[in-house]
Amino acid sequence: MKRLLCLVFVICLLVSGCVTASRDVVFQTSTIDALLAGVYDGDMSCHNLLKRGDFGIGTFNCLDGEMVLLDGNIYQIKADGKVYQPAPSVKTPFATICKFSTDRAIPVKTGSDYETIENLINEYAPNQNLFYAIKITGQFRSMKTRSVPGQQKPYPPLKEVTRNQPEFYMKDISGTIVGFRCPPYVKGINVPGYHLHFISNDRTQGGHVLNFEIVDGKCEIDVLNQYFLMLPVNTKEFAKTDLSRDRSEELKDVERSSK
Amino acid sequence: MKRLLCLVFVICLLVSGCVTASRDVVFQTSTIDALLAGVYDGDMSCHNLLKRGDFGIGTFNCLDGEMVLLDGNIYQIKADGKVYQPAPSVKTPFATICKFSTDRAIPVKTGSDYETIENLINEYAPNQNLFYAIKITGQFRSMKTRSVPGQQKPYPPLKEVTRNQPEFYMKDISGTIVGFRCPPYVKGINVPGYHLHFISNDRTQGGHVLNFEIVDGKCEIDVLNQYFLMLPVNTKEFAKTDLSRDRSEELKDVERSSK
Repeated sequence: MKRLLCLVFVICLLVSGCVTASRDVVFQTSTIDALLAGVYDGDMSCHNLLKRGDFGIGTFNCLDGEMVLLDGNIYQIKADGKVYQPAPSVKTPFATICKFSTDRAIPVKTGSDYETIENLINEYAPNQNLFYAIKITGQFRSMKTRSVPGQQKPYPPLKEVTRNQPEFYMKDISGTIVGFRCPPYVKGINVPGYHLHFISNDRTQGGHVLNFEIVDGKCEIDVLNQYFLMLPVNTKEFAKTDLSRDRSEELKDVERSSK
Repeated sequence: MKRLLCLVFVICLLVSGCVTASRDVVFQTSTIDALLAGVYDGDMSCHNLLKRGDFGIGTFNCLDGEMVLLDGNIYQIKADGKVYQPAPSVKTPFATICKFSTDRAIPVKTGSDYETIENLINEYAPNQNLFYAIKITGQFRSMKTRSVPGQQKPYPPLKEVTRNQPEFYMKDISGTIVGFRCPPYVKGINVPGYHLHFISNDRTQGGHVLNFEIVDGKCEIDVLNQYFLMLPVNTKEFAKTDLSRDRSEELKDVERSSK
């Protein structure tokens, strides 16, 4: 009888392993081009998103702020610059997450900025055809981020929203950069190259990273060779959006530009 | 005790459900642009592929023929025009499969060819932004297919191989067309639009479909909103291949052209 109970316990563990996130999988809901086109209605709840990972970035229903998912907690950096913890029922129209597990740790030089860090990671992760989750924990001399204000219907395209994006400048701040480097062939689906968000250690500041200068820190990367894309089936706008257009130029404007 | 055994049985069923393929998921190994570039070394065995679905298309190690996966059986249509059943250990460098389950059945008109069928499915499946598995079972007045001959290293690009592709012309043949319609944004990763293979009812003929004329049959489609991409980690050539180039024109040449 005891043996049987042990067996049940082991099997239950196995089942729970199946239901929760797998390692080395990038999980994504909807596509970046749908977001660029103004499909801001959330399709997946934060509750369901958390089943797929504990680390990542995204946005919220109506484009209401930048998402940071770190250590299993979701933070919402709104356009007022404040950080909120959204209810589990709040939905997301676009998010990219994984179950983070460090594969490589890279020493970071004092004074490194966004470009220096990109070059550094490229050296340590020369395979451009896989996905990488990136976690940079440290002390920053400066951190420049932005957020996006929640929108009302009819939703304008993302490039119009970011034209008036609020930007935040932080000095001497400790925190974590959370994000991904995606391969070039995800163009139209996700952001090729680097896409990073930030959250301060005290969880009061953050946003979509525009630039930074690091004093001291470590960069950890997780190599991911599996990509799981969950497409919206309940969002009518997704079905109707023309996703055959090349929106690369819009994406460049939206991702890394100051207003 | 009996109850406990029942519980174990139910839990085991759940576990096996996790290990085998899920519904509404397109599973793909490697990318079409890697294949276009000549990455023909197989990364996943047929044995492992079958855990992910029972229906689909692809090719084999060294580009040795066209794959049809139907009702859980893998068929290899080689360049000699004959159909083989590969050993479970044989690997594939590119395959797209799913666990097929009919969502819609569409009546097919006598005399329909490839283009007519495309237009017909487009009418019944207007959402261009999801994936669809397509199964057309019937009697065909004519069926024109091709296969590809196995290659040796250094592998030439796919467009050079298909320049001398063997083509097969079948008359009055019963069989099944197996394939997918993929959304436009998978450009570079899979084939946007239609990609169909064929296998005869007696499992002696088939190939990559170039055109056909149907006498009588039914078309079933399975709507798929989840996409799982498994990238090669053991194939060195995959890591080294430039997947940032636009290979759309090469793809057009390769997919639908007669030599």
